[in-house]
Amino acid sequence: MHIRKQRLLTPGPTPLYPPALHAMMASDIHHRTEDFRKAYRSCLADLKEVMGTSNDVLMFAASGTGAMDAAVSNLLSKGDKVIVCSAGKFGERWVEIAKAYGLDVTVLSAPYGKSVPAPQVEAALAHEPAAKAVFVQASETSTGAAHDVRAMGRAVSHSDAILVVDAITGLGTMPLDIDAWGLDILIGGSQKAFMIPPGLAFLSISPKAWKFTETSTLPHYYFNLKKEKKSGDAGESSWTPATALILALAESLRYIKQMGMTKLVENAQMLAHATRRAVVSLGLELFAPDSPASSATAVRAPAGMDSGIIVKEFRNRFGAVIANGQGSMKGQIFRIAHLGYFDFTDLFAVVAGLEIILNANGFPVKYGTGVAAVQEIYEQVAVRQPVTA
Amino acid sequence: MHIRKQRLLTPGPTPLYPPALHAMMASDIHHRTEDFRKAYRSCLADLKEVMGTSNDVLMFAASGTGAMDAAVSNLLSKGDKVIVCSAGKFGERWVEIAKAYGLDVTVLSAPYGKSVPAPQVEAALAHEPAAKAVFVQASETSTGAAHDVRAMGRAVSHSDAILVVDAITGLGTMPLDIDAWGLDILIGGSQKAFMIPPGLAFLSISPKAWKFTETSTLPHYYFNLKKEKKSGDAGESSWTPATALILALAESLRYIKQMGMTKLVENAQMLAHATRRAVVSLGLELFAPDSPASSATAVRAPAGMDSGIIVKEFRNRFGAVIANGQGSMKGQIFRIAHLGYFDFTDLFAVVAGLEIILNANGFPVKYGTGVAAVQEIYEQVAVRQPVTA
Repeated sequence: MHIRKQRLLTPGPTPLYPPALHAMMASDIHHRTEDFRKAYRSCLADLKEVMGTSNDVLMFAASGTGAMDAAVSNLLSKGDKVIVCSAGKFGERWVEIAKAYGLDVTVLSAPYGKSVPAPQVEAALAHEPAAKAVFVQASETSTGAAHDVRAMGRAVSHSDAILVVDAITGLGTMPLDIDAWGLDILIGGSQKAFMIPPGLAFLSISPKAWKFTETSTLPHYYFNLKKEKKSGDAGESSWTPATALILALAESLRYIKQMGMTKLVENAQMLAHATRRAVVSLGLELFAPDSPASSATAVRAPAGMDSGIIVKEFRNRFGAVIANGQGSMKGQIFRIAHLGYFDFTDLFAVVAGLEIILNANGFPVKYGTGVAAVQEIYEQVAVRQPVTA
Repeated sequence: MHIRKQRLLTPGPTPLYPPALHAMMASDIHHRTEDFRKAYRSCLADLKEVMGTSNDVLMFAASGTGAMDAAVSNLLSKGDKVIVCSAGKFGERWVEIAKAYGLDVTVLSAPYGKSVPAPQVEAALAHEPAAKAVFVQASETSTGAAHDVRAMGRAVSHSDAILVVDAITGLGTMPLDIDAWGLDILIGGSQKAFMIPPGLAFLSISPKAWKFTETSTLPHYYFNLKKEKKSGDAGESSWTPATALILALAESLRYIKQMGMTKLVENAQMLAHATRRAVVSLGLELFAPDSPASSATAVRAPAGMDSGIIVKEFRNRFGAVIANGQGSMKGQIFRIAHLGYFDFTDLFAVVAGLEIILNANGFPVKYGTGVAAVQEIYEQVAVRQPVTA
């Protein structure tokens, strides 16, 4: 066997920013020292800055699902009416969490690959004026479809409800104006656009959502927003923090701040745009053509070909891990990610590899067709954006 | 300033095992691949082996408090009677968690530095035959006192209750025969004797405790023992795992298995024994002389000296972070840890540093007195245990 590098190209965990990875080597640090408080404070402040919000931002040693749990168990009470927009596996997770906590759930569902239209949320709120919260994914990672959380924010802001947005793959891949759009809770995770390994979850919380913590009666302990806010103000976490990951996050946030969040979002958008052009030019079909997310592009496998073959071939031929469909979409679609430490050069290679795999598995394509589509987008961008740095 | 290395010498985070730290560099791995499943399975199997139990072992992306929360929210119901042994800050945490979940708590408390005698647990169970669970710390990290969980296990096993042991600093520093002693739930954390950074919690669960999950009605989602067991059997975690830390754990468990858990426990016990001899030889007073834990030794600061001075001097003079007392014990005691990647050579240096600090702060000691006490213990051990590896 010749050299075959390992490449992680999934929508989370994502390609890692090497200096952030190396920063973890300094984890012989104690979490109740001024040195660590400095790192923790800088993470909280930088998260606020890159998220572009004046809302409080809190962090947890947990995966993203932990912050989703926290948003329910800290803000609501048993029997509360809530509305969930469900358009994939992560929408279904909101339903599961809401049910686990005994909420009275109205599900607005869209078929996989589609998204829930914002007017449906508005209508549901009109129909259920007692609804306390609306839950949604900004970007439904399992299908590559985006939700119009801006319009949903507008609808929800006219009600007494709060809007809880799982932006775990949305953050850093789409514009999200938390304050102006009324995104009361917005959840992110370390292993996505933040380019570091999984294990940290964070969320921003609006003054409107803070009021909900006063009336919520659901029990909780580990995930305690009020306690975490108090701890964070003192530069600490309530429980022992995942120090290695905090050090990594401090480093990646430095990089993201330097680039600017707008550029990071643009990066994902350009790569997503180029990927859509490339796969369509190869005669493949997009899974979520109507409201494609820029976090990942889901593509239907050619008729008669299991998408697992494409995933397996990427691994065997090129050492690259791309994502299969999840749940019932397994075998039907494959997903090319655009978030994390991922650039045009990665995409040239991914599309070239895809062409070889398609050809080798009975779906003939002309070599270079998809790559050319990516190159053309690159050229447009390069013209618009002269290479100076 | 001359060279002054940073040294982390606290009872958690603890000194890190370098190969485990380096293993985190390989975190560009996806958690739903056979490569990662192999690492995850090996962690679960090795944890079972080093914990010496036939009970199921589950892992969470969380700090130890997360597993404490899980043990309550997955096994009990609102209003359940429970008994908490509280002898320090972490005993108080059990009380807080139990109250957060609406349990009916009987607290058996011991003054800081003491521990709750096992016969008190037996008497409390006789008095409260409806009690569902007894909560205790194997080693109360905040005071350096150990509990006799063996005798408690015997008492609890004759009842319908389960014994839930926070062994976060107990595991790897004291003998804990989980199966023979009836320790129904035993909780550990990555950043203690396991020599890696914080962010992973794990617990073992007995068949008796599993039955409690069938009747428990407390709501929970992120921490779900039954779901995690099913996931673990498939070599996965329910939610995105903290991959970097899992890779580190796989590496440190390899080291611990090679050494043997008995030797790891002995390591802490020898260092604790030597530390006690050293501080007493310097005229200092132990804070928990009756039931000293081997995870950390708490020492009273000399009369009239704030223990914070000793902590600060260790940092300023020697770049070493040792632990102050927590809460109301702050300023009264300092704590020298014995767990994690910590050996006799570390202890020679710590005691030599302590002698200098005491002398410089108005508590005269003869240089070498404490170090000699450690050297004598080393000599006894070296004689008993010829240096071959």
